[in-house]
Amino acid sequence: MKVGIVGLGLMGGSFALALKKEFKKRDERLKIVGLDHNMQHSLEALELNIVDKITDDIHDLLNLDLILLAIPVNAILKTLPALKDASQNTTIIDFGSTKEKIVNAIPKEIRPNFIAAHPMTGTEKSGPTAADRKLYRGKVIVLCDTEENDKEHLFFAKDLLRDIGMKIIKMDAKEHDRHAAFISHMPHAVSYALANSVLKQEQKREILALAGGGFKDMSRIAKSTPNMWIDIFAQNRENLLNATECFIQELQQFQEYVKQEDWESVREWILNANRLHEII
Amino acid sequence: MKVGIVGLGLMGGSFALALKKEFKKRDERLKIVGLDHNMQHSLEALELNIVDKITDDIHDLLNLDLILLAIPVNAILKTLPALKDASQNTTIIDFGSTKEKIVNAIPKEIRPNFIAAHPMTGTEKSGPTAADRKLYRGKVIVLCDTEENDKEHLFFAKDLLRDIGMKIIKMDAKEHDRHAAFISHMPHAVSYALANSVLKQEQKREILALAGGGFKDMSRIAKSTPNMWIDIFAQNRENLLNATECFIQELQQFQEYVKQEDWESVREWILNANRLHEII
Repeated sequence: MKVGIVGLGLMGGSFALALKKEFKKRDERLKIVGLDHNMQHSLEALELNIVDKITDDIHDLLNLDLILLAIPVNAILKTLPALKDASQNTTIIDFGSTKEKIVNAIPKEIRPNFIAAHPMTGTEKSGPTAADRKLYRGKVIVLCDTEENDKEHLFFAKDLLRDIGMKIIKMDAKEHDRHAAFISHMPHAVSYALANSVLKQEQKREILALAGGGFKDMSRIAKSTPNMWIDIFAQNRENLLNATECFIQELQQFQEYVKQEDWESVREWILNANRLHEII
Repeated sequence: MKVGIVGLGLMGGSFALALKKEFKKRDERLKIVGLDHNMQHSLEALELNIVDKITDDIHDLLNLDLILLAIPVNAILKTLPALKDASQNTTIIDFGSTKEKIVNAIPKEIRPNFIAAHPMTGTEKSGPTAADRKLYRGKVIVLCDTEENDKEHLFFAKDLLRDIGMKIIKMDAKEHDRHAAFISHMPHAVSYALANSVLKQEQKREILALAGGGFKDMSRIAKSTPNMWIDIFAQNRENLLNATECFIQELQQFQEYVKQEDWESVREWILNANRLHEII
């Protein structure tokens, strides 16, 4: 199988390593061509044996069996027009964290080939050196608007994703973005806001002294670099603003209870939050 | 050594197990008497060999070498008057997460004996079954207003805390509460608010599908039970409201940038949050 991976960071690099492991197990041949506008990343990916070859021309990928787009969501939008001449036999998967704008921008020539996916995994690290062949194992991947896909491309993609250990869930792209705003995008904004408010008020000594597991967990994703997240916030702007507003209202409700020393309501409010325990 | 532990939950239970491990290593005798108003917890602590004996009368502890108060902060305030008859040889340590109200309420008879401490560790679990002898290892413990302590009691407490692997930091009680509001108490309120806003808007299927590592980390402490946290919020009310307000302002600033599609300011804001990486 010949695979082109656009974007050799954490997501693309980890996908390459997972495929390599799987094909070695099957004793089948696999060739991975990488493309990344960051030359340093390209060279690192070659050195680390994540890819077998590097190209800087996306046309070199258009006749491969599979193309993976593992780049920030605005970069996906910019890349889509160049993919319209891809072979009808080429399956294309994108790993963007927003889906509605992407599915609306897929050129009609490749709509049957194009699997719009969002893998629910990642870390705060980035670049090929962060790649981890186990990143996808046991994790959920959401496939959106699959009714637009050709069955063969869809089955091929699903088999491959399952082979590297992922659990597949289907969702409407528009719904996906609304849900992702609440469960993923807004929490990232909250983590950044938490880090910023603490950095503004506190000194290094006190942060080091008082940061227990709770604060460390809550601020971990505040270490994520802006590149990917600005694109996501921009593409999912309306849903994000709505989710952030709901969250702020919830916290203001808490403030009101505390101001009024209404501890019985605080208890109810906490007990309600504890219900999350029953789900995850 | 004879130790009385008031409160046989996660914190008290873990302290007992850590002491037992340490004294076994030293080949010294240790006897631990437990007190917990929850009879179920008392019996579990006995069965799990966390304590050697149970009592329901605090006077049984007043002549031991050490008394640990590992109960919610309001319960500490209520217990303090009963400790005023403790022996001058008894060292008393409290593990409350707020410190100012507690140090102000210590009876003068035992002020030299009383070490006001806040261990920066814990989990979202509770009860004796959650006890873990490694809970304190490598973690920071903040000791407040130690200039009020008798040197012998202070040295004894510091040695013991270091023996179970803790790193000691000193802080003024009032300052501690202001810092803890930002770095510990407000983040808990934020996690509860996050859980509540998501539970209000989202169904179980979507939460399960889309909850990646980021959301799981950020909502973990929203599983903490109300008992301990209502007391903390109540005792540190002013500082908590101030920290929560600073946090909301930070998030509202982000909302404003997003509304205005001012992505350059969002980038600056995120890069600033990323600085936390240099500290923890």
